[in-house]
Amino acid sequence: MESPGSTHQLQIVRRPVTRVTGRSREASEDAIAVERALEIRVGGRALSVTLRTPGDDEELALGFLAGEGVLKAAGDVAALRAEAAARDDEPDTLDVTLAPGVPLDWTRFERHFAATAACGICGRAHLESLRAGLQPLADEARFAVDAVLALPDRLRSAQVAFAETGALHGAVWCDAALEPRVLREDVGRHNAVDKVCGWLLREELHGAGEGLLWVSGRAGAELVLKAARARVPVMAAVGAPTSLAIELARAAGMTLVGFLREGRMNVYCGPERLH
Amino acid sequence: MESPGSTHQLQIVRRPVTRVTGRSREASEDAIAVERALEIRVGGRALSVTLRTPGDDEELALGFLAGEGVLKAAGDVAALRAEAAARDDEPDTLDVTLAPGVPLDWTRFERHFAATAACGICGRAHLESLRAGLQPLADEARFAVDAVLALPDRLRSAQVAFAETGALHGAVWCDAALEPRVLREDVGRHNAVDKVCGWLLREELHGAGEGLLWVSGRAGAELVLKAARARVPVMAAVGAPTSLAIELARAAGMTLVGFLREGRMNVYCGPERLH
Repeated sequence: MESPGSTHQLQIVRRPVTRVTGRSREASEDAIAVERALEIRVGGRALSVTLRTPGDDEELALGFLAGEGVLKAAGDVAALRAEAAARDDEPDTLDVTLAPGVPLDWTRFERHFAATAACGICGRAHLESLRAGLQPLADEARFAVDAVLALPDRLRSAQVAFAETGALHGAVWCDAALEPRVLREDVGRHNAVDKVCGWLLREELHGAGEGLLWVSGRAGAELVLKAARARVPVMAAVGAPTSLAIELARAAGMTLVGFLREGRMNVYCGPERLH
Repeated sequence: MESPGSTHQLQIVRRPVTRVTGRSREASEDAIAVERALEIRVGGRALSVTLRTPGDDEELALGFLAGEGVLKAAGDVAALRAEAAARDDEPDTLDVTLAPGVPLDWTRFERHFAATAACGICGRAHLESLRAGLQPLADEARFAVDAVLALPDRLRSAQVAFAETGALHGAVWCDAALEPRVLREDVGRHNAVDKVCGWLLREELHGAGEGLLWVSGRAGAELVLKAARARVPVMAAVGAPTSLAIELARAAGMTLVGFLREGRMNVYCGPERLH
């Protein structure tokens, strides 16, 4: 079987982590999936930006264009050129030159939709301003470790639709006393977080620098960015974080917790908020 | 705690399913998460389309716009107007009227990036052509149930990076003999599938109407659409399908399998390919 073509090193990095089990804490290292932006270009012109695991970028671009109906066969491509970004806040690029006579209807891709619709963070404008736009939190939010470790059990009974369908992501915002105040579920994890953020806006809590955001799945960059923009000081995920998620959480001065389940959690940055 | 504001009925539908355990088959019904498109408009103009779980759409739009920095406080919104789509292949809409003096830089949202970048299916053009664009498969692909049920064990050892980071989605294409031929992993599930589809294109197998696509997570609409466009007759997911995924698979004449694990699977459509 063909396995990923890139080097393992590109896809996994090691990052410091504080492993918390009950009252015990252990400083350690964790293997983290690398998440980086790739801009797919056609004939030198930007068509799409996606957050991806580096590697097999040519296949990623070809498969994306085939799925869009632009490519019908391998012969529709005249050349491929990859370029790694010079700076961390710029996307890598993969430029596809179409074979003569292969049409591309650009107007289909020029509609007035936010490039950010689905993942919350795929427009180039965003990437450039990721770090710049983040105002570090200087809050006094503190949470008891025991209370954080007890959250999963408290939330389990609330996730009704997930239990029934197995297909929904959940997001919960807890207030400064770690009381769950709002739960939203959605087939799209970014949507569940957007719904919680909309609730925060209505309650005049968006930007207040309070509370903890719990998410049922992994902690990807787009979710951390949404939490950072809502100025929620702590984000806790049931699943794993990505490299970019940790980087953004650190830049925002947030606390990022992963693998919060079964009485354990990993703290990837900002452990001082947990006592 | 505030729980989802919409009726349960909007978010879950019941669909027929064939439950397969070893050699036994049972016709049954399954609770399926509804997945539908929502177009977020500002001042009547389309800004973004997302596939979401219906319900709390106002909060979804507000949270999305807050995350984009358009809204700073609840008072930035003068009015909200929701409209359900008249037809199934059109998105529902949620129109946000900004309060006087609240600026929105449309040029930020007008960049030449595919609206489809992240989820593979969020541009309106796509929604309108979803069913129209699908050419039903009339292939003779058949797979032995035992071989399909045995796939998870065969693939487990291959998913190296996931095992190490817990953060990656995997996609595998198996040929007509159910031999795994290509594995790709990515932080984005759509990317993993795009990488596999790019490999298929290079191997002149994209559109060949052969094989089975296995995905490590849930089966959402965007993944089924990518498989349908690659003309892969069977898609098998470790997790749950959504309502739109089943609908698209059926329209494409595909076989859709969910919850393929621990010697069991649920077949949501096209069971005739499994014998």
